[in-house]
Amino acid sequence: MASLQTQLQHKINTKTKPVGALGMLETIALQVGLIQETLCPSIQSPAIIVFAGDHGIAANGLVNPYPQAVTAQMVLNFLAGGAAINVFTKQNNIQLFVVDAGVKADFSKVTDHSSFIHAKQAMGTENYFATAAMTEVQALASIEAGKKIVTDIAAKGTNCIGFGEMGIGNTSSAALIMSAITGFSIEECTGRGTGASDEQLANKIDALRICLLKHQVFNLGEAPIQLLSKIGGFEIAMMVGAYLSAAENKMIIVVDGFIATAALLIAQKIAPSVLNNCIFAHTSGEQGHEKMLDYLKIKPILNWGMRLGEGTGAALAIPLVRSAVAFLNEMASFEQAGVSSKAE
Amino acid sequence: MASLQTQLQHKINTKTKPVGALGMLETIALQVGLIQETLCPSIQSPAIIVFAGDHGIAANGLVNPYPQAVTAQMVLNFLAGGAAINVFTKQNNIQLFVVDAGVKADFSKVTDHSSFIHAKQAMGTENYFATAAMTEVQALASIEAGKKIVTDIAAKGTNCIGFGEMGIGNTSSAALIMSAITGFSIEECTGRGTGASDEQLANKIDALRICLLKHQVFNLGEAPIQLLSKIGGFEIAMMVGAYLSAAENKMIIVVDGFIATAALLIAQKIAPSVLNNCIFAHTSGEQGHEKMLDYLKIKPILNWGMRLGEGTGAALAIPLVRSAVAFLNEMASFEQAGVSSKAE
Repeated sequence: MASLQTQLQHKINTKTKPVGALGMLETIALQVGLIQETLCPSIQSPAIIVFAGDHGIAANGLVNPYPQAVTAQMVLNFLAGGAAINVFTKQNNIQLFVVDAGVKADFSKVTDHSSFIHAKQAMGTENYFATAAMTEVQALASIEAGKKIVTDIAAKGTNCIGFGEMGIGNTSSAALIMSAITGFSIEECTGRGTGASDEQLANKIDALRICLLKHQVFNLGEAPIQLLSKIGGFEIAMMVGAYLSAAENKMIIVVDGFIATAALLIAQKIAPSVLNNCIFAHTSGEQGHEKMLDYLKIKPILNWGMRLGEGTGAALAIPLVRSAVAFLNEMASFEQAGVSSKAE
Repeated sequence: MASLQTQLQHKINTKTKPVGALGMLETIALQVGLIQETLCPSIQSPAIIVFAGDHGIAANGLVNPYPQAVTAQMVLNFLAGGAAINVFTKQNNIQLFVVDAGVKADFSKVTDHSSFIHAKQAMGTENYFATAAMTEVQALASIEAGKKIVTDIAAKGTNCIGFGEMGIGNTSSAALIMSAITGFSIEECTGRGTGASDEQLANKIDALRICLLKHQVFNLGEAPIQLLSKIGGFEIAMMVGAYLSAAENKMIIVVDGFIATAALLIAQKIAPSVLNNCIFAHTSGEQGHEKMLDYLKIKPILNWGMRLGEGTGAALAIPLVRSAVAFLNEMASFEQAGVSSKAE
């Protein structure tokens, strides 16, 4: 009997269209069929989880134009429904979960939001300009927390998931992770984040170069837990666990932008097969993301200069993943429709 | 008082996100606001119209690997709901209309489909390898028919529209139109269509070069009606009228691929302001489309190698246009959400 891949490709090729005419949708349809191990895949209760955490290095404004307080303010904006990710998940019928992974604010009184998940590891990381961002115990605990959150959501029937983040200063952490794992220089990995000026960008690169040397980050590409401990963030560590659990649960993972991909770089170091489940939503406008994707040998779905985080790229791409599944299940074949196939 | 454009840009910039962070979605939101002349635009009853027509040149298999009968067979597939455009319009809640612009088959007995529009000009065009494809009277009548179809749909409240096509052999007509209007050589304009082999492609180019010379196509860039008459198609001529009417009715026009853009090349020759209403869905995998878009100085929404026609690219892009409108209307501003703006 032909392999599932061969059968899926045959099903795709005999739809009433020229072979290959649906381009990347055909690639996605094949991948989704292989992830779900079926000729008739489906997208069930898709979800986006936004992990929020503060970064000690952001307290002094060294690497970020927005004040650190914006992380907590944006969490409240998510809960009130006013952020971009609220708009796009609502429009596209996607569940939204918001996780306090380590925001420097007390959310213990937020008890009336079914979509808010309390998983605070600390009131933000330490400032890795001075010391390690977190302990290795905290890094591991964050990964485990991320795994549990996704496992719980999978248990309720979700089979397609995207991860977003909010954390002032977290493009710096992501740039250091990228440099450690890919070997690109810190200049190549560092971008403007939420909108640094030329001068701010130069300062950010200088600061990150010092952190790189201080923590010997370039030696930690093969040591994910140490890397997270030295220069990571709680939201990033939780995303690492989230990827691992999503792949274990055979979910379709829709990968967002720069920071989400930095977390994936770590997850694929721990379990390379995670990449089999990943569909890449977009190329971020944040400098470095395109190089990350090149490193992973990936061509994403969208490329239109978004750089917002929050999982917004993933939320916009999920309808296109739905389209891939829909044509595979619903289009007629040449035979079914009585359409003549190509004269060879 | 500030201009509408300034007010729209201010509204976009004060949403809870870094300035520019939603990339091309912000460009689209601005454009849609300007088309509808409002700070609060909306997408109402979006529609795709598929214009179908046969091409005399397709009868001998000179330029196309699929038999000419496929045009009519695919029209029946559209009516039965089995084609890609059926799947994507259903998924994305888009109305679908199918027009018999000039298919070489009798559809007079199809009377029970509310979405099927009878506008047959002839049983396919003449073979422009031998003679003109249609008379100038037919070209004008086709344009008028396309205008009327869109005017009728606009009258029912649709304010966002995309045009697709079905017609075996119509990439040849589109290539000749492209060459006439843009000045690119016929080699640069001619692609594989539904999937010509290397040898078929070489034959297609040779045949089109003969047609180019025979009809002096390179002199007709400023004479749209003559151009359509010599080497056009009924579905292409109808799309020209459809674009003109859509712009007159202040509709958002979502432009599909190679053939849809060839028709637009003609429409913008007749009324250059049509382009103000156009959002370009995708870069087709059909050779030549990217050069057409360069000629129009356009960067489309999607670029993933689709080359199916039928309006499928437009149908996939409409949810993204909806996202642009949704963030403009629904996202909180920094002030509304109590989020600190950038520290300058």
